[in-house]
Order: sequence, then structure tokens, then C-alpha cells
Amino acid sequence: QDPNSEDLSLDQRAELLNKYQRVRTETDALSDPLSAEDMQLQSMPDASPVKWHLAHTSWFFETFILRHHLDDYRLFDPEFHHLFNSYYNSLGQPFSRPQRGLLSRPDTEQVFAYRRHVDRAIERLLAEEDCSAEVAALMTLGLNHEQQHQELLLTDILHAFSINPLLPAYLEEPADDALSGQSQPPSWLSVPEDTYTIGCDGDAFHFDNESPSHSQYLQPFRIASRLVTNREYLEFMEDGGYCEPRLWLSDGWAWVQKSQRQAPLYWQEREGGWFQFTLAGLQPVNMDAPVSHVSFYEADAFASWAGHRLPTEFEWEVAAWLYRRPDTLSAANLLEKRQYQPVPESAAAPQFVGNLWEWTGSAYLPYPGFRASADAVGEYNGKFMCNQMVLRGGSCITPADHIRISYRNFFYPHQAWQFTGIRLAGDQV
Amino acid sequence: QDPNSEDLSLDQRAELLNKYQRVRTETDALSDPLSAEDMQLQSMPDASPVKWHLAHTSWFFETFILRHHLDDYRLFDPEFHHLFNSYYNSLGQPFSRPQRGLLSRPDTEQVFAYRRHVDRAIERLLAEEDCSAEVAALMTLGLNHEQQHQELLLTDILHAFSINPLLPAYLEEPADDALSGQSQPPSWLSVPEDTYTIGCDGDAFHFDNESPSHSQYLQPFRIASRLVTNREYLEFMEDGGYCEPRLWLSDGWAWVQKSQRQAPLYWQEREGGWFQFTLAGLQPVNMDAPVSHVSFYEADAFASWAGHRLPTEFEWEVAAWLYRRPDTLSAANLLEKRQYQPVPESAAAPQFVGNLWEWTGSAYLPYPGFRASADAVGEYNGKFMCNQMVLRGGSCITPADHIRISYRNFFYPHQAWQFTGIRLAGDQV
Amino acid sequence: QDPNSEDLSLDQRAELLNKYQRVRTETDALSDPLSAEDMQLQSMPDASPVKWHLAHTSWFFETFILRHHLDDYRLFDPEFHHLFNSYYNSLGQPFSRPQRGLLSRPDTEQVFAYRRHVDRAIERLLAEEDCSAEVAALMTLGLNHEQQHQELLLTDILHAFSINPLLPAYLEEPADDALSGQSQPPSWLSVPEDTYTIGCDGDAFHFDNESPSHSQYLQPFRIASRLVTNREYLEFMEDGGYCEPRLWLSDGWAWVQKSQRQAPLYWQEREGGWFQFTLAGLQPVNMDAPVSHVSFYEADAFASWAGHRLPTEFEWEVAAWLYRRPDTLSAANLLEKRQYQPVPESAAAPQFVGNLWEWTGSAYLPYPGFRASADAVGEYNGKFMCNQMVLRGGSCITPADHIRISYRNFFYPHQAWQFTGIRLAGDQV
Amino acid sequence: QDPNSEDLSLDQRAELLNKYQRVRTETDALSDPLSAEDMQLQSMPDASPVKWHLAHTSWFFETFILRHHLDDYRLFDPEFHHLFNSYYNSLGQPFSRPQRGLLSRPDTEQVFAYRRHVDRAIERLLAEEDCSAEVAALMTLGLNHEQQHQELLLTDILHAFSINPLLPAYLEEPADDALSGQSQPPSWLSVPEDTYTIGCDGDAFHFDNESPSHSQYLQPFRIASRLVTNREYLEFMEDGGYCEPRLWLSDGWAWVQKSQRQAPLYWQEREGGWFQFTLAGLQPVNMDAPVSHVSFYEADAFASWAGHRLPTEFEWEVAAWLYRRPDTLSAANLLEKRQYQPVPESAAAPQFVGNLWEWTGSAYLPYPGFRASADAVGEYNGKFMCNQMVLRGGSCITPADHIRISYRNFFYPHQAWQFTGIRLAGDQV
Ligand SMILES: [Fe+3]
Ligand SMILES: [Fe+3]
Ligand SMILES: [Fe+3]
Ligand SMILES: [Fe+3]
Repeated sequence: QDPNSEDLSLDQRAELLNKYQRVRTETDALSDPLSAEDMQLQSMPDASPVKWHLAHTSWFFETFILRHHLDDYRLFDPEFHHLFNSYYNSLGQPFSRPQRGLLSRPDTEQVFAYRRHVDRAIERLLAEEDCSAEVAALMTLGLNHEQQHQELLLTDILHAFSINPLLPAYLEEPADDALSGQSQPPSWLSVPEDTYTIGCDGDAFHFDNESPSHSQYLQPFRIASRLVTNREYLEFMEDGGYCEPRLWLSDGWAWVQKSQRQAPLYWQEREGGWFQFTLAGLQPVNMDAPVSHVSFYEADAFASWAGHRLPTEFEWEVAAWLYRRPDTLSAANLLEKRQYQPVPESAAAPQFVGNLWEWTGSAYLPYPGFRASADAVGEYNGKFMCNQMVLRGGSCITPADHIRISYRNFFYPHQAWQFTGIRLAGDQV
Repeated sequence: QDPNSEDLSLDQRAELLNKYQRVRTETDALSDPLSAEDMQLQSMPDASPVKWHLAHTSWFFETFILRHHLDDYRLFDPEFHHLFNSYYNSLGQPFSRPQRGLLSRPDTEQVFAYRRHVDRAIERLLAEEDCSAEVAALMTLGLNHEQQHQELLLTDILHAFSINPLLPAYLEEPADDALSGQSQPPSWLSVPEDTYTIGCDGDAFHFDNESPSHSQYLQPFRIASRLVTNREYLEFMEDGGYCEPRLWLSDGWAWVQKSQRQAPLYWQEREGGWFQFTLAGLQPVNMDAPVSHVSFYEADAFASWAGHRLPTEFEWEVAAWLYRRPDTLSAANLLEKRQYQPVPESAAAPQFVGNLWEWTGSAYLPYPGFRASADAVGEYNGKFMCNQMVLRGGSCITPADHIRISYRNFFYPHQAWQFTGIRLAGDQV
Repeated sequence: QDPNSEDLSLDQRAELLNKYQRVRTETDALSDPLSAEDMQLQSMPDASPVKWHLAHTSWFFETFILRHHLDDYRLFDPEFHHLFNSYYNSLGQPFSRPQRGLLSRPDTEQVFAYRRHVDRAIERLLAEEDCSAEVAALMTLGLNHEQQHQELLLTDILHAFSINPLLPAYLEEPADDALSGQSQPPSWLSVPEDTYTIGCDGDAFHFDNESPSHSQYLQPFRIASRLVTNREYLEFMEDGGYCEPRLWLSDGWAWVQKSQRQAPLYWQEREGGWFQFTLAGLQPVNMDAPVSHVSFYEADAFASWAGHRLPTEFEWEVAAWLYRRPDTLSAANLLEKRQYQPVPESAAAPQFVGNLWEWTGSAYLPYPGFRASADAVGEYNGKFMCNQMVLRGGSCITPADHIRISYRNFFYPHQAWQFTGIRLAGDQV
Repeated sequence: QDPNSEDLSLDQRAELLNKYQRVRTETDALSDPLSAEDMQLQSMPDASPVKWHLAHTSWFFETFILRHHLDDYRLFDPEFHHLFNSYYNSLGQPFSRPQRGLLSRPDTEQVFAYRRHVDRAIERLLAEEDCSAEVAALMTLGLNHEQQHQELLLTDILHAFSINPLLPAYLEEPADDALSGQSQPPSWLSVPEDTYTIGCDGDAFHFDNESPSHSQYLQPFRIASRLVTNREYLEFMEDGGYCEPRLWLSDGWAWVQKSQRQAPLYWQEREGGWFQFTLAGLQPVNMDAPVSHVSFYEADAFASWAGHRLPTEFEWEVAAWLYRRPDTLSAANLLEKRQYQPVPESAAAPQFVGNLWEWTGSAYLPYPGFRASADAVGEYNGKFMCNQMVLRGGSCITPADHIRISYRNFFYPHQAWQFTGIRLAGDQV
């Protein structure tokens, strides 16, 4: 029998509902500090308005679950099928991405009504006795999808606010004293050569791009025990890092010249030194904290300057497993810590999770044996496996129950508006 | 004695205040149908958000009048000096024009508070006994400036709404039965050759670009008694007008190919024929109404196809004077008629004012002897006297006490989001 | 009887042939200093390869004359009809303009063979007794067309050579001592108000855009007796002219910022001061010579800085008539002087002809009553009457029998690769 | 002792000189069919003029060898150091790449003189008794570099000629009857799982990007015995392949829409069916020959449509080793066959070398332990290891003594002007 068609138990449904409610409530809460006008901002084609995130995550449940699995489900608004489709060509041509910020209608109120409409329907669905394992799988995908958009919601509003000369702050006050730690010199963690298993299979949720798990032969390598700090990055800058083409990839150098980038994305030099625009507004750069909002090109150039390199995603995954700590997730600077920015790393133990997404030297490609599913959900990940680089580990705004060591994030090498950082690696000698 | 330094009489101040209050109230009222989110929309660099119009018009009074003429005037917010400066380089570099839609802060509420702050200050200023004629002149400029932005506010929201697949309507319902008139065949109005006086001097308000008044020799010409209708324009389209390069100016043909324009800006072909997106939402094209939202290139190509030409701005002005009617202003389809769209023209008498701005064949250039004033206000008009074409007559959304026969509007030849139309002219044989 | 169908006399045909041979020989000679590779250069879409000019001018005779008027004329190559059509849409879609430099075939030799093929055919045509006045008119147009391309050939190769770091020189050695004159302070020439006749009708050759001649009322004005010198322009530069937005038209200022222009097109600052790239290679800027290769935006900004303005094309034409000298054409620095660059103007007498094309403040628009002819030749001038500015007077590379006081040249306001200069004007007080 | 400083034997020097002369003569010969004007063509920034290739390959010997290793070597022209530097930032800013076609000077004659000047100097260098192994290594690099440019010279002139409506042919007549073979259905070649050694170390020449050789674990896979044919590709097209977004990578679909590509780069539909522009001019598409000039996006979409995938570069390399034939190189369709186009593959034995470069699914990244050398030569390959995809196997215009199974070529996924083709692979079930 198809395991997907099995009915869920009462407990399973209750647990699912509980998770659903927690995730949805979190999303709502993240939008709390924002006005209707804030929620409409789209400051570049890569980013989306908060309102759009709120609607699109609901659209996902409606489109992939409710339409098919809840009898007599009534679409909230048939037009939304087009408006809030992100990129699923199987479902018709999506609304023009760079124009998402031009949708003053539906207004925020309607979007929240849409969310509640979907919530009620999901509750009904999970109350049904014949709710199947397939629904559970799609629900879990939908919740992980919504968690991804929680992170995007924050990175996108940060970018949008950074354009405004009034420098609006998302947070009323800067984060607590976790920020005041001092960075210690990094140590090198060694990993011996071997054929390792990479990726993730099995029942626990993971995205399709993390599977199939497979063998990967690795040469011996070493990897830094912490992320590169702002202080270290400033040394690179002061050493003329942005003016020396030999440190850069060819495309990276072209990007520096075209973008005229001379510092990380949100840095500004003002009287009194370097400041960084953050979710808590403009703040002095914390020299002990990890450098953030750098592009892959910057990460790679920094590594060249430092005489090292970035880890591959396979090295990263193996090291993160080998050096994981019992409290990895609970200790990590993830969304639940409510720091909303990277914090200095203590000397205690290496921490691969949280704080910042770490650029790897690996291009985002399918794992051996990867097949995207044939239906519309198959467009989720697979079609992006070109021209992007893999990032690992989650960031200070990633929910704790969303991240995994096998988790593969991916962005284009020039992009820096995510919470991205740098961990160095090297060959063993 | 400098007439500008003379004090205003009590009556003069009362009248000025009254006019001020009427104009400001009208602006507020025009924004009534819009939500905070609507007011933030900027759908192209040429257009501005409604919220920006609301703030910028207040900025104008604050910057050019209150700062200088009201003792102890407190700026509402010093940052606004930069944020809501449109293009006055004398006052520092203005905020990036294409990013006006990214200012979620200040929010709409603050912008209305800004408006009230300025209103209170203007009231105080006009209560002062030593309020001078110079203040009166600047006040009148500020009010005419605000009226210009009333029109832009409407054209900009029309454009923004046109992007949204939900096709939002600014007006709850379409305009009244003035729309149901039938167009009559046009007649040709003759004007004999002579040396005419063009432009406007003297005490009554006019923009600097309408002066100095000066002589202009004109050959005999004839000009159509009404605007070109949608029906006539559709004939042009159906005759292949958009596919025949010989009808177009060279730059116009390049524009057609690049923009892929095949009909007026807001026309859409749907089942059942041609529709036009209007402030009252999507409506069937009214074949008797004048064709609107055409670029200069389209106007010129239509005229070529019809075997005629566009009038020069001088011909237009002379004809409008010669054929003006006693009730020209009160009969015209101007903002106060609340049609918000062009209406069919009756056969009765030619009407040069209202309905649509009429493209002329004249480039926007200074009149002989024109000198822009040396201060920041001098940037108002003069620096745009290049690459644009003159339009005359006002439109269905121009306030009646704002338009004059000598009034020179100007836009780039490819622009069509204003309420623009076509009147034909020809040489006399 | 149609005068166009009258037969030419033997003398008329001989004179036409003589003129034809002189113009064609001149074109050939202008290409003499160039290699086949030089002749293929196209350094921007505005410019064309010399080889293309050589072919296109022959195409003109073939297309508009030989095809229709010479029995049993055999096209040199039917493909050329498409390849060497510049912009005559009536004759089919022309070959892509920005790709003219990609036509290595036909090679230069074939293009010269094409020229000789056309020459032989024209000789045959002019030997026919029934050769009509219509042919004569078209021949004259074709010869004036070729003379226009002689000038473009030189401006285009100058631009192309300017890209090459080897700084190739078109001329073996710089021009003679005409260059060593000293500029005198300019005087102001007065012109009284009146209704003047502008333009050109009648039998002598003129382009259609110079007609009809018509009345134009002019206010009294004054105009400078000579062009602005490099020395004067450098003062403007040193006074921060390129950094002061208030001096510039709005579009001009945008152009300065985008193009990063900080000096005339061909100026380079090197050790030892300012140099200018010329047809004689890189030369020190001659401070007494007129400033050349400036855009309309620069001309207008300079005039603002100087407290003056540019003349209108009508003012220019009237002043040029009133102040013409008996030897205007023979004294002027035109192509036949073989200077290939502007020379200092003596104090003796004002000279409106030659040296540099002079930007006027007039947009290029049709004269009252202008009608382009309905056939393909009608595309020659009329369709460009939008977005361009009029220049007057001819330059140091204009043939003497090509220029007229009524001659209207036209370029876009940002263009500076022609031999363009600045003459100031002002209102009379 | 440093092996690099050892002197070469007389035989070694003779062999090197012989190889040098053969390669240089080949390059000269490849330019034989071209005129000076042909050799100057640059039809897009990705391509370079033939003349530039001729000069730049000489510059390479001059810059990396003669300057340092030949006493009293005189630079042919010091300006060439800048003009013919491709992308070595260590040697100063190279001349603007998109403007290489604007260098009419030096002319072709001078460039050949430059080649001879360098030849004479190399001959002198190789005549010296203390000529070191380091020189030999650099000579070999220089010769392989020149061979790469031989291939580019041909692909670039093919592209340039494709723009010209005259459809010039590089070859006088189409290639011989090798073209008339019939393609057979492909078979699947199996490769078992194992940890394989990839890449190339040791003394035989290879590029730095092929090393270090290293272990790579591979899952079992299968790979097609031949390339995809034009016939098969046409099926994809006729099945709507270019209109079905679900077959394409996300960036690939965006590329299709922007480029409006609907067939391989050089295909044209004319009366009578599909034609392809080739080095032998426009030819009917040979349905039995492999499809060529496809981008990675097209290759990937075709594979999706066919239900397969592209091989990784590691799979390709292992399969090419396992299934190599004794006569692999001599049988392959490489430059020496003088076909200048891909030929149908016989059923006999699989052939991984020649015919077309085969897109792999691997991003171009450094092999584990890769370090670019610190000097200018280090810019040769390493800095391009981002955003490009690996191609393997060489093409019909690759010299036989240039290609290796470990050879890694790389291009951006949208590029199709190289001789690129498609080989399918799949997982073993
Ligand atoms: Fe999504
Ligand atoms: Fe304004
Ligand atoms: Fe021409
Ligand atoms: Fe090279």
C-alpha cells in the first residue's frame, strides 16, 4: 500500500496542527513592527514585500494542499492564484516578480483575512479522520516553506529600510549583551580523508535537494573554528582588498568595478568610523562579531587575501557533524534568540549552526541520483541548480526547527542581502 | 519702492487664505479614495507616489515661503528638506527620484500631519500685518504648483493601478451621462495670417515660461473644431498605422518597435472588443470620446495618416483666443466636472480648454527674452526647455482656476500617461 | 508641361558630369590615407565605417537615379540594396545600423568597383540626349548627399581613431600656420527687430528642410562676432562649470553625470597640459582656436555661465546675411582649405561660415508649410524633425560648394563628435 | 637542484622548435582564407578579431618568455604590451575587451611582422645552450595557449560571418563525404561504482586546472555511446521544447525568453527546411550529424525532455577512459581532419574525443588542492572558476596534440558559439 495514502493518527494530526499554528503565529508576529506601508516595500527584484510573503505562504497551503485535499474548499480569491504564485510555471505564468511592490490591492487587511481563511481551512482539514500521510508531508513542506519566507521577510525589510535616508529600525532597541562578547583567535579543526556520507534520506523532513544521501570521498582538510570577524575583514579592506584584482575571481572583479562596492553591503563610513545598518537601525560595527552581508565574491577574495580558501559544502557538512556539540541547536544564535544579528563567537566550542549562512566553494548542483518530483512541487528546488553557490548552517534569523546540518541554501555569487558570512578552510599539509 | 515689499491688505490676505484652503482641501479630498498602501505606489520613474505628492506640495510652501518669511518657523522634520525636494539642485541633491516609492516612512499619517503643520504656519503667516506682496506671489506660485500635482496625483495613480491585475478603480462608479454624447464630424476653423501676440505678461498669475509676451508672425492656417475621437483613432489602427514606418517620425518608429506599442497606453483588447483602463476601472472604449493617453509620436503619426499635421503652440494659442466662447471655462470638462475622463464634444462650439492636453508640433523652448529667475525657484521651468514638446489646453483633471489659454505644459514625446489627445491642423490653401 | 520632364541641354549635362566627377573624386581622395582596415571601423552606432560611406553614397545614385532612369541598368549586386540602405524604410528594412562595422564583405576593393560601376552608368546616363531635368535634380541631391557623407566620413574616422591607444593620425602632419593666429576679444553685432524672411526657395539647390521660405518676426538681438575659444572654454571648466548643476539644462546635467564628461570630447589632460585628439593626431590644445566637439548641452551651459545664450537659428540666419562679407565663402575655413580643424578667427570681419557648426537654441522642426515628398526621397530629412537641435554655418570639413547660409544641420543635444562650436548671442537692452 | 633550472638538451631544443614551428604555421594557415578586413571583425564582446588572436598569441611568448629569458630581447612595440594583454591584471589594465575590433592599427601586415619578430627571437632562444627546463615549460604552455586560440579564431570568425547577410564562407567548399554517414541508435555504456582517480599530474603537459589528480567516488551510471543528433534535437523542437518552461532550468528559461532563441544558434528556417550556418557557408542541416552550437541551457533542457541528464565531468572522464579505443585520437574528428564541422558518428565504437565539446553537468571549480601559481601565469585558469560549466572532449576544430581526456574546457551556460554538443547520461537502475 502507498504509505502516502495512510491515514494520520489523531496525535499526528494534533501535533501537525500545533506546529502549523506556531509557525503561522511566528510569521504574523514578525510582521507586527511593520505598518501597511512598510509591508508593501520592494526595494529590488530579488526581494519581495512583506505583504507578498504573508500572502504567498498562504497561497502555498491553498495551492498545494487545500485545493486538492479539502472537499468543498473555496478559494479565497481566484485572482490570488496568479498574484501570489512565485515561480511555479506549471501553475500558469506568475505575476511579474519585479512588480510585486505595486500590488497595493489586496491590502494588508485582506492579506491577513486570507491568512485566516487558510488557517480555518487547514484546521478543518486536520480535523478530518481520513487526513493522509501525503497531506502531512505537504503540510510539513508548507511549514518549512513558510519558515524560509520568515527569514526572507526579515532580510527583505532590512534591505528596503536601508534605502530610506530616515534609517528606520525594525527593532525598537538593539539586541542584548550577547553582542558584547570578544572574539578569540580561531583554531583549525582537522578532518581526515575518507569516503563520507553526505546528504539526508529517510523519514525526517528534509528538502529534496538534500537527497539522496551519497558517498563522497574527501581529502584531509582543516576548517576554522569560527567565522571571520568584522575586525579581520576591515584589515582586508585597509590592506586594499577591494582594489587588488589579483585577489578576486574574474567575475568578482567585474562585479566590484560595476557595483563600486568597497565594503560589506550595509557598512557606511561616518564621522567616528564604520557603521552598519541593521534590523536595529544604524549601529557602530561590532568588530568582534562575524562580518555579515558579504557576497560570495567578497568571501572568496577575503579567503585569497588570507591565504586560505572556502570549504566545499561537503567539507562543511562533514566538519559540522564531527564537531557538533550536544547543545548545538539550543546554543546557536538562531531566530528564537531574538538577536536579529550575528553575535561574537566564544572560544568555547566551534559552532557551525546559526549566526550567519556560510558561503561554501560549492556550486549548487543536484546530488547524484537527484530527481525533482514531476508535479508542480518539483519546481521548488531543482530548477535553480545552476549559477548559484551553496551556503550552509543557517543564520541568526533562521528558526531552530528549520535548520539541519544537511541543509543546502543557495544564492547567486553577487548577492549579499542575506545574513551571509565567511568561514575559512584549507588543505592539510 | 519695490512693489514686492508692499504689505498686503486685510482683504488680500483673506482672499489668499481662502484660496489656499480650497486648494489644500481639494488635494486632501483627491487622496480620499486611496489607502495608505495605494498612496505609496510608484509604478515608474516618471510617476510619483500620491503620498510623495502630498508631502512635496507642502515642502514647497515650507521651503520657498515659511523658512524665509515666517519668524520662528520650525521645520516639521529637517530630513524632509532632502526627502521631498523634487529637482531643485540649488537646495542640495534631491532624494533619488525612482526610489520615491520606497519611502514607507514617513507614513501617510505623518505626511498629513506635515500638511497640517504647514497649514497652521501659513495661516499664521497670512495673519501677520506685514505679510508682503512677495509672499503673495510665492503663495500663488505654491498653489498653482499644488494644482499641477493634483493632476499628477491622478495620472500617477491611474498608471499604478493599471499594473495591478485586479484592475482597481479610483472612482467607485463611472462618470455620468456626459459620456453618452455623440461626436460630430469636425469642422475646420480658419485663422488668417498676421503678426500675433503670444504669451502672457502682467499682474495676473502665469508661469515664467508663458512670458515674455511677444510677437509671432503666423501664416494662415486652419485647425479642427474638436479632438480626434477613439473611433477615428481605431480606423488608423485598423489601417495598419502601427505597422507603417512611413507614417512615423524616425524616433517615433524606434519607440514603437522598442515599446511594442500597438494601441493607446491603456487600451486592452478583450473578448467583446476594446477596453480602456480608466480612473473608473476597465471600461469599454467610448468611440465618441476623444482618444486619450497617446504619445506625441502617436499623435504625429495619426496626423500624417490623416493627411494633416499638429498645430504649433502659437497657432493653437491664437485659435483658442479667436474661437473662445463666453463660457469657455465653465463649459469645459475640467476637474470640477468630476468626470475624470474625456467626454464627447458636442457640435455646438469649438472648445479648446479641458478634456485633454493637446500635443502641439512645438518643442518646448524659451520665449524670446525669457530669463529664469536666479534663485532656486528659477529651476521651476527653465531647465526643462529641451527635448520636450508643448501641450496646451488642460484636461478633464485640470482645475478650472489653474488653466489659461497661454498655459504651456510639456512632456517628452514618448510619454502617454498624462491625459493627452490630438487636435489636427493644416495649412490654408 | 512638367518642367521636370524637360530635357537637359548638352552644356547642362556636361556641367553636371563635371560636378559629379569632382565630388566623387574628392570622396575617393578623402579615403586615400586609410587602409582597408581603417575603412571598416565603426566605433559607435552613430558613426559608420568609411567603407560604408563609400558604398552608401553610390547606392544613393543607383537607387534613386539609375534604377529608374537608365535603361538596362544592371544592379552591381542586388544584395547591396539592403546592405547600403541607411534609413529608407520605403525601400525595405535597412541593414542593422550598429552592425555596419561587421561587413568585412564586400571588401574595399569591391566597394571601389561598385563606385566605378556607378560612375560608368552615370556617365552613360548623362550622355543620353533625353536626360531630364528630374534627373538633374536627383543628381544634385545625390551630390549634396555625397558631400554630407564626406564630412561624416571624416568625423567618423576621427572618432574611431580616438579609441585606439596608438592615437593614429589621419593627416601626416598638422595643418599650416593658419593655426597660429591669435583670437581677439569678440564684439557684439546688433540686429534690429523686424519681420525677416527665413529659408530658401527657388531654383538653386537647397534641401527640402530649408523651405518654404517664410516670414519670421524677430526681436532686436545681438550676436558675437566670433566663436568661443578654447581659452574661454577652459575658464568655464576651471570655474567648475562641469560641477555646477545650475548652469545646465536638466537633461544636460543628467548627461554630464551619466557620461562623466568633464571636458570637450577629444580633450585629454596629460603632463604638460591639455591636448586634443585631432585628424592630425594628438595635439596641444590651441587656446586661440574655437572650442570644438562640444555637445549642445555643453554649449548651453557655457552660455549660461557666460551670462548669455545661444542664438536661435533664425537670429543666426539673419545675422549671417546682414554681416556676410564679399568673400565669405572663399575666406571661410572650409574643406578646401585642408586645415581639417578650426582655426583662430582674425579680428577683421565676422565670419559665420566654416570653422565649426554652430549650435543654435532652435529645435529642428519643419518650417511652416513644409511637406516632405511622398516618395522614398521624402525620408531624407523630414522624419528627423524631433528631438534634435539645429546647427548652422558649416565646418572646416564642409565643402565650399555645399554650404549655404540657409543650411540647416541637426544633431541630438548630447552628440559632440561633429565639428561643433559655440557662438553666443543675447537680447538687446 | 631546481629541475626548472636544468638546461635542455640539444634534442629537446630541436623538438621544441619543431613543435613551435608547426603550431605557428598552423595558426598562420588558418588565417589564410581571410582578408585583412575579415581579420578585424569582432561581432560580440565574447569573441575577438582574428588579427587580435594572431597578435595576442605572439604577445604571450613575448610577455611570459622572451622578456625574461632572452637577453637583449627588444619588444616589437612597447604599446603592444597593453593592446594585446587579454586579461592579466598583474600586467596592468588590459585594453578594453569589447573594443578589440576597433584596432585597425596595427594593421595585419604589422601583426604578421610581430609574429615573425617573435618567431626569430624564439629561434634564437632555443639556440642557446643554457635554455632551461623552465623555458621549455613556458614554451609548451605558450603553444597550448596558441592552440586554444586557433580554435577560438575559427569560432569567432564563424560568428562574425553569421552576422553578414552575404553569408560569407570561410571554406571554399563543404567538407567531404565523412558527412554522409548515418547515425545509429545510441547504446548505453555502463560504468560501475568505485572511487576513481580524476585529473592529471606528472610531467606530460596539462593545464593547471586538470590537477591535482584526486580520488572521486562515483555511483554506478550509464552514458550514451554517441552525441545527440540534429534529428533528435529537431524532435525536441517540434515537441515544443522551447515553449515548455518545465523542461528548463530557471535561468535557462529566462534566457530563452530574453534571447528569443527557438533553435540552435546557427539554424535558420528557410524555404525547403532548416539550414545551418557553418564555416562552409549556409548548408542544409545534416540530420545524422550531432547537434552543435547549443548552450548548456539547451543541452540541459533537451536531456530533461529525453528523460535523461548530462554526465558530470567526472563521469565523462571515467567513461572516456574506460571506453577509449586504441585509435581514439587518430580516428577522432579533430582539426587535422579538416572537416571543420561535426560528422555523423558510426555505430562501430564510442568516441569521446573530437566532433564537439560536450557539456557536462559540472560547474567549473578547482580540484581539491588546486592552487594557481602566484605569478601572472596564475591568472590563466583559476580566476574563471565561477559561474561556468565544464565541457569535455574537444571538437572538430581542436588540434589532435592539444586534447586530452582530462582536459577541462569551460564556458558560461548561455554561450553557444563554440562547437558544443550533447551527450546523455543516466543513473543505473
Ligand atoms: Fe516561496
Ligand atoms: Fe513639484
Ligand atoms: Fe545618406
Ligand atoms: Fe589567451
